Amino acid sequence: MKVVLIYAHPDPRSFNAAIAAVVREELEKIGAEIKFKDLYAMHWNPVLSAKDYAGYDNGTTAEDIKAEQTDISWADVIIMICPVWWNSVPAILKGYIDRVFSIGFAYEFTASGPRGMLNGKKALLITTSGVDKHAAEQSGMMELINKSLVDAVFGFSGFAGYQHKNFFAVPTVSDNERQEMLTELRQFIQNFI
Amino acid sequence: MKVVLIYAHPDPRSFNAAIAAVVREELEKIGAEIKFKDLYAMHWNPVLSAKDYAGYDNGTTAEDIKAEQTDISWADVIIMICPVWWNSVPAILKGYIDRVFSIGFAYEFTASGPRGMLNGKKALLITTSGVDKHAAEQSGMMELINKSLVDAVFGFSGFAGYQHKNFFAVPTVSDNERQEMLTELRQFIQNFI
Repeated sequence: MKVVLIYAHPDPRSFNAAIAAVVREELEKIGAEIKFKDLYAMHWNPVLSAKDYAGYDNGTTAEDIKAEQTDISWADVIIMICPVWWNSVPAILKGYIDRVFSIGFAYEFTASGPRGMLNGKKALLITTSGVDKHAAEQSGMMELINKSLVDAVFGFSGFAGYQHKNFFAVPTVSDNERQEMLTELRQFIQNFI
Repeated sequence: MKVVLIYAHPDPRSFNAAIAAVVREELEKIGAEIKFKDLYAMHWNPVLSAKDYAGYDNGTTAEDIKAEQTDISWADVIIMICPVWWNSVPAILKGYIDRVFSIGFAYEFTASGPRGMLNGKKALLITTSGVDKHAAEQSGMMELINKSLVDAVFGFSGFAGYQHKNFFAVPTVSDNERQEMLTELRQFIQNFI
């Protein structure tokens, strides 16, 4: 199993980093090949430029985009790990999607409408939120992320399966509860892969 | 009337640029003071860093964030103009929201829950989409943007009023139709302000 693991959090001491470590451990246990992308450490450029735009049309895709597209094509599974900021992903990850999941690579337009091109792959979005489950239910956060990000990106791009898993109230729960979250995550990853 | 106009499109020949020009014209007609932010031309850095995070806590906010917060505080009206990418805003604008609309500036947590701090201001998000009205209705795009962006950002931050206006199928309609959109926009801005 080939996995691209995309991680977007500015603080290496964050709970998101602990999540990424646990996911890697579980993938290594089953002998998966992993390409790990720490977008902050990579200094990923999230700003889709006019040159990028032109490149999609004339086939001169920027080198950094091309390298990511090669890895996404290689992978059976894409896993993204990040905090929820404003009911969405951090800008650095939004810009990974903007630039890498481009027309002609992730989707195309046909006479019968748009068609996803990343067929047969699975995807998983793992997030953390400051808000607790109750507040998230009131604001509809999970449904919004599902519809605006998970379905809209992975579904639109033709993925065969995709899920979203969020851990709630991460900054305010106890250390014990965070440890339980990581235990739950191990089980979740084992079931997903 | 003091207006901060935030514009995020990589191509100065785009329809988004035409929208920004019309909005500025209408604002100038009524003698509004305008601070125009072309995020691409400014090379705005959309990546919220660990240092930014620490700065919110210890009061050492980065200079670029501080300058934007000063202008947002000054404004009566915030207008954002951008294309819809993946049911959301381009990463460069997402990162403006991530970094500038920070805790302690745009909102705070109180004993009775979160409280918006940008009270009394009005906001308007103007977007363009590749999809037409029918496809947008099927995918629920407008509701998603409203709930995940407009309500979640402007509502959460305590704005007194906010709206979202989208122009559909911009790349595929005729030049005449795009001209009609700009005429419609003039009327819309006159009613909004």
